[in-house]
Amino acid sequence: MAVRDARVVLFDVFGTVVDWRTSIIRALGEFGRSSGLAADWDQIADDWRGQYKPSMDQVRLGEREWVPLDTLNRESLERVLAVHGITHRSDDELTALARAWRHLDAWPDARGGLDRLRSQVRVGTLSNGNTALLTEMARWAALPWDVILGAENARTYKPDPQMYLANVALLGLRTDEVLLAAAHNDDLEAARACGLRTAFIRRPTEWGPHQAIDLEPSDDWDFTVESIEELADAFGA
Amino acid sequence: MAVRDARVVLFDVFGTVVDWRTSIIRALGEFGRSSGLAADWDQIADDWRGQYKPSMDQVRLGEREWVPLDTLNRESLERVLAVHGITHRSDDELTALARAWRHLDAWPDARGGLDRLRSQVRVGTLSNGNTALLTEMARWAALPWDVILGAENARTYKPDPQMYLANVALLGLRTDEVLLAAAHNDDLEAARACGLRTAFIRRPTEWGPHQAIDLEPSDDWDFTVESIEELADAFGA
Repeated sequence: MAVRDARVVLFDVFGTVVDWRTSIIRALGEFGRSSGLAADWDQIADDWRGQYKPSMDQVRLGEREWVPLDTLNRESLERVLAVHGITHRSDDELTALARAWRHLDAWPDARGGLDRLRSQVRVGTLSNGNTALLTEMARWAALPWDVILGAENARTYKPDPQMYLANVALLGLRTDEVLLAAAHNDDLEAARACGLRTAFIRRPTEWGPHQAIDLEPSDDWDFTVESIEELADAFGA
Repeated sequence: MAVRDARVVLFDVFGTVVDWRTSIIRALGEFGRSSGLAADWDQIADDWRGQYKPSMDQVRLGEREWVPLDTLNRESLERVLAVHGITHRSDDELTALARAWRHLDAWPDARGGLDRLRSQVRVGTLSNGNTALLTEMARWAALPWDVILGAENARTYKPDPQMYLANVALLGLRTDEVLLAAAHNDDLEAARACGLRTAFIRRPTEWGPHQAIDLEPSDDWDFTVESIEELADAFGA
């Protein structure tokens, strides 16, 4: 089977489809203005995102019961704000701010690329986000997913193999009929180990102007492209 | 909270959104013509659908492990064809025919009604179908779901309360923030018992010209309407 014969293309979402950093900095800035707080919001955004993997690792490694990413984001936010001296905010305010992760803007090529890709294959998410988060984000960013697959289906987080295997099983497909598109080499490594096809989408500014990781593919992925539009091209869309 | 304040409207699918009977009779007729077989395809369609609840009950009552509806449909088909004297068909042929349940046409009001309703609330499925089946049906019938929720999320079948509770939990909402729209009173009864809002959509020809059940609402559902368009009207869409 040629790689183009993938029946479904599943996307990592944070960083691959949406530009979390710009959107989160904006949400924090708006929170600061409306609350009359001054702070280094760029740094807080990066520190918040810095809690992402460690917080999921607690679940992945069995140190705590599974909780959805909405909950991890809420907990991490409170911790990070405290480090920056921002405390005593109301529960409602913090919960609303944590939901900024539901309202992330798509990279400029995402919607058009997905629309074109959809003429050839099914498109969906394979994300550490939870269903509610991903559903709201799809509306916010107008992402035309055929199917939203999140972390509840495996009750763990990527790169746990169960995340790839459980979600492919939900589609009733073999792993080699599914392609994972991601901007992160470690995600693709785990997907390939499970038998999925792989596409690396280069996102050199995901982490801001000084990004040092994932600038290049770490392996001979089935596709290496600069955008979702280019992935659609590769599928003959 | 007014019933209109429901944040999400989830739909029963078979019979409520799609006209399974017409579509299945058509698929069986095509199978007959291509196979050179003559039979009472209307009756076979009704007998096949007659196996639907009994086959799910085996799972729901714990008599067998959970299997997806695709599998139940495949098993039921083989049994029903045998009763009608049709045997010795290939596995591939039967599997393909059973997937007719993925390719059901929408009722004429469904797509337009869902499009309008989506301007006011999120719309999704709450179906005994499995994710793969519902995803393919959405493409076939161009149904604009925000989220597809199927039976895997509870690993049982409606009207087991877990189906309503597990799927509402996935959305991160309270049960009274979710409305179930269905053409079947028993589905609405189970949903209401779990705290969901309810809408009865009358489908007087779901079971063909001699339908005897679900012609009238059995209770004072929050809405009783003749179509999804009329439900959209009720939401001010």
